[in-house]
Formats: sequence, C-alpha cells, structure tokens
Amino acid sequence: METGISSITREVIIGDGHPTALIGERINPAGRKKLQEALKRGDLEMVQREALSQAEAGADILDVSVGTFGVDEVKLLPEAVQLVIETVDLPLCIDSAYPKAMEAALKVYKGKPLVNSVTGEEHSLARVLPLVKDYGAAVIGLVQDDEGIPKNSERRLAITRKIVERAESAGISRRDILIDCLTFAVGADPTSGSIVIDTIRKIKAELGVNLTLGASNVSFGLPDRSLLNKAFVAMAIAAGVTCLIVDVAQVQSAVLAADLIMGRDRRARRYIEAYRQRQTPHEQKE
Amino acid sequence: METGISSITREVIIGDGHPTALIGERINPAGRKKLQEALKRGDLEMVQREALSQAEAGADILDVSVGTFGVDEVKLLPEAVQLVIETVDLPLCIDSAYPKAMEAALKVYKGKPLVNSVTGEEHSLARVLPLVKDYGAAVIGLVQDDEGIPKNSERRLAITRKIVERAESAGISRRDILIDCLTFAVGADPTSGSIVIDTIRKIKAELGVNLTLGASNVSFGLPDRSLLNKAFVAMAIAAGVTCLIVDVAQVQSAVLAADLIMGRDRRARRYIEAYRQRQTPHEQKE
Repeated sequence: METGISSITREVIIGDGHPTALIGERINPAGRKKLQEALKRGDLEMVQREALSQAEAGADILDVSVGTFGVDEVKLLPEAVQLVIETVDLPLCIDSAYPKAMEAALKVYKGKPLVNSVTGEEHSLARVLPLVKDYGAAVIGLVQDDEGIPKNSERRLAITRKIVERAESAGISRRDILIDCLTFAVGADPTSGSIVIDTIRKIKAELGVNLTLGASNVSFGLPDRSLLNKAFVAMAIAAGVTCLIVDVAQVQSAVLAADLIMGRDRRARRYIEAYRQRQTPHEQKE
Repeated sequence: METGISSITREVIIGDGHPTALIGERINPAGRKKLQEALKRGDLEMVQREALSQAEAGADILDVSVGTFGVDEVKLLPEAVQLVIETVDLPLCIDSAYPKAMEAALKVYKGKPLVNSVTGEEHSLARVLPLVKDYGAAVIGLVQDDEGIPKNSERRLAITRKIVERAESAGISRRDILIDCLTFAVGADPTSGSIVIDTIRKIKAELGVNLTLGASNVSFGLPDRSLLNKAFVAMAIAAGVTCLIVDVAQVQSAVLAADLIMGRDRRARRYIEAYRQRQTPHEQKE
C-alpha cells in the first residue's frame, strides 16, 4: 500500500518499499512556552525557523500546529501554513483539533497534504472525513473513540477498523489513511510501549494500511530521552510503521539504521551518505 | 517460558517477564588475530581479561569459544572454561563445533551451562543432544540443516520445529532450548535483517521457545557498526528475543532502553541506574 503526499514541487511516497517517511514534529506549541507566547502575539518567526532547521535535518514532511490557549487557529493556522510553504518546499501535515481551522488551512495549501487528525469519535468522523475527501487530502487516524483510548491492542484495532470503514464510505481510499497507534510515556505506564508495538502489527496484518507514529511521548519524564526515542523508532519500524512524527535531528540516525536492516535502503546508500555527513559536519553548512 | 542457566553462585532466568539476558561474545577468536595467536600458544591471559571486562560491562552470561585453526579444542576449551569460572561468577555458554570439546568442557563446568550449539543437521542432532541431556545443560539451536541455511522464514521455522521435536524426544525440555535465527550482514544481503525479525516472530508464535540472537554480524562491513547493532537489538527485542549474544559494552544502553519500552524494567530501575553510571563514570571504577 502506498500513500502519496505532495507539495507543489515534491512528492513523498509512504509505504513498505520506501524509506520511513519522517514528519518533523517541532512546529507545535505543546509544552513549549516560548512558541506559545510567540503564537499568541501572531509572531510566526519561530515557526519559520523550525521549518528551515527541520528541512535541513532531513524531514520529509512538516507537521504544522498552532493550537494553544489564546490563539485563533482559524486565522493563524492558514497564515502559518502559507509561511511554511513559502519557506520550504516540503509537503505539510495540517494539524488541528478544529475542523474550521483545518479547512481554512486546506484552502491555502497547494498540493496533497496530510490532515492530522481524525479519531473514531463520531463528531470527528462526521466533520473531518468530508474535509479530507473534498480537498483530496490524506488523513491520520488516531485510535481513540467516544469511550476514550483503549488500553489493549484488540480495541485499538477495532477503532481502526471503524475509521477505515467510515473513511471508505466517505469516498476516501484506504491508501490515503495513516493510523497512529498513540504512544504514552513508559515511565508512567510500563505497558504503553508494548501495546503500541502489538497494535501496529495487528493493524498491519489485518488492514494493510500505512502506519505513522508520534513517537517522542514514549520517553516523557525519563532521562536520556534520545536513547529511548531511538530504540523506540527502530522497534516501531520493525513492527511495521512506514512513517514517524518525530524530532528528526534526534532520531534520524536510528531510523536510517533500522531502514537499512529492514531492506529499505538499497546498497546502504542513505545510511552511508548520512555517516559521511556526520564525519565532516563542517561541510554540511552552507 | 523460562530458561534457567547457572554458575555455582548465580542463576540467570531467560524469558519474557525478565530483562533481556546478555551473553558476552568476546571470548571468541573468530576474526581476531591476536586472540587466535594467543590461543595457539595456549596463552589464556586475553581470555581472562575479556571475561573480567565483559562482567564489568554487565554481561549476564559469557560465551567461551577457543575454536581456531591450530588449537586442540578438546584440551584448551576445558582449560579456558576452568579459568573463566575461577575469574568471574557468571554462568557460561560453552561454544564449540566439536562435541568432544563440548563434553570435555561440560565435565569441568559447575552449574547448568548453555551449549552453543546444535543445528538441524543429522550429525549434530545425533551427537550434541545426548550431551545436553546427560549434563543437564540448556542448548542453543541454530536454524541450519543438512541443506544449509534457508533464505526464508518458513523454512527456518521448519528447522526449528525439527530441533525442538528431536530435543524433546531426547528428553530435553522445551524450556531448555534457545533458538538463534542466524544473522548475516545486511551490507551483503539487504533481506537478511527482515528475515531474522520475521523468523523470530513466527517461532515465538508457534513454538513459544525462548530465542537468542548473535546480533553483531548484521553490521559487518558497514561504517558505524555500533549504530546498526543498537538499532538491530532493539528491533529483535520488540520481535520477541529474550537473550542476545553481543558485545555488551557496545549495545547495553540500547538493550536497557528496549527492555524499558517492552515493560521488562519495573519503575525504570535498571534504565535509570545505568543512566546515573554514565553520568558519573569515574565512580564506576574501583
């Protein structure tokens, strides 16, 4: 199964035969006070800087979220999307909990974006899926429904079934759905990592859809988060994800290693190129 | 399923509820010219040093191999085992291609060792399994038979079935069998990593036996081997291995991260302890 996402000039293909697609997570004010303050002032300079640095670090797609208390997303999200489009030529993932903000951003986007996200909740399915269909986007589905986020893989699989069925009924192709199995901190709940790995495998085996994963939460509250995040992305790739939402600069080396091990890097070309760049970091700068 | 291995004073339990057991791979002359030369002279000083440094690095079990051209293993393997027993109190993995050398080493061992290895080849099954039974050992089974090492997971699974059946017929409990799915360099064959991950899952699902993995080969011939080895051990743990044969100092941090993610490290105790030791390295030394 292949999912295509595009900007005006670039297309990213997500799927088993391809390198794991990396969605840069850093244009997101959650937990970042400075960015929150800037967005409240309508100041998008940090957004622009994060776009550039993530593109330079090797992101394939950029997530764009401006959702924080005190921000009018319907106004600011399209502005942020417009600015990022003018700054880098990567495809974008339009990230909002508000369908109206999503639609405003979809209107200014050029190409085929990802929409982040729909859930298995009735109000979300009813409002987000028609937007995804109308604007010809692809969509990330979260394994959450009106009863919450289940603690076991069987019920997460059941929610995925529902999202896929409803999306297909709305005229969205299965290949335009990416499922995120939802990662929580293993420091708070020791079962949260293995549930994700298990759910990824079950969804892949039964439904064949592509899977993405917001991976960084796994290490929340623990020391040496980078070590945990790198191990987790490798484990998720082995289990079947074909896309990740991550801090690209932090985990890219582990992703390239995992891709090579899974046979997704012919002649180790990408792995060796990244190794050479690490060896001569001064040559990377312009 | 739990596999117990012991020295006189220590027991290591291998199984899903436990931390991944690490077998130190470095007492092995393959590809190490200096150690080969020393062993030919009957000089075991390097063996003793490797035993100490691996124990200090956190190995749970030590593999002991003296197999190289020009060495009489029947004489030298028991000497090496005896010396390692006197040097560290870890359980050992007695590693030889020659049943006579295995037996000589089993005679001097105290406790319940691992025997590395039996294969699905008729001559190996016929000669190694009775030794394992007679000396009350556990055994590593390699997925190789008289036709060689298959290139697909189905046939590796079939060889595992055969090894498990023959071992059980010889009176060896299933819990005393560890299967090694055999790793080759991804630089030479891009499918060799994914075959291993796939085979691990199939064996675990069908036979429930514990699995070990000589993991370091995966990176042979490539730069930054440590990066690849760390990603691979995390992937193998997510797929279901409960034991690894590795350079412990190199991959331990990734193993601890993967164990924590898989719920095998209650309250992140081992992960955080290792983190603290990395922060204050001078306090580690005696």
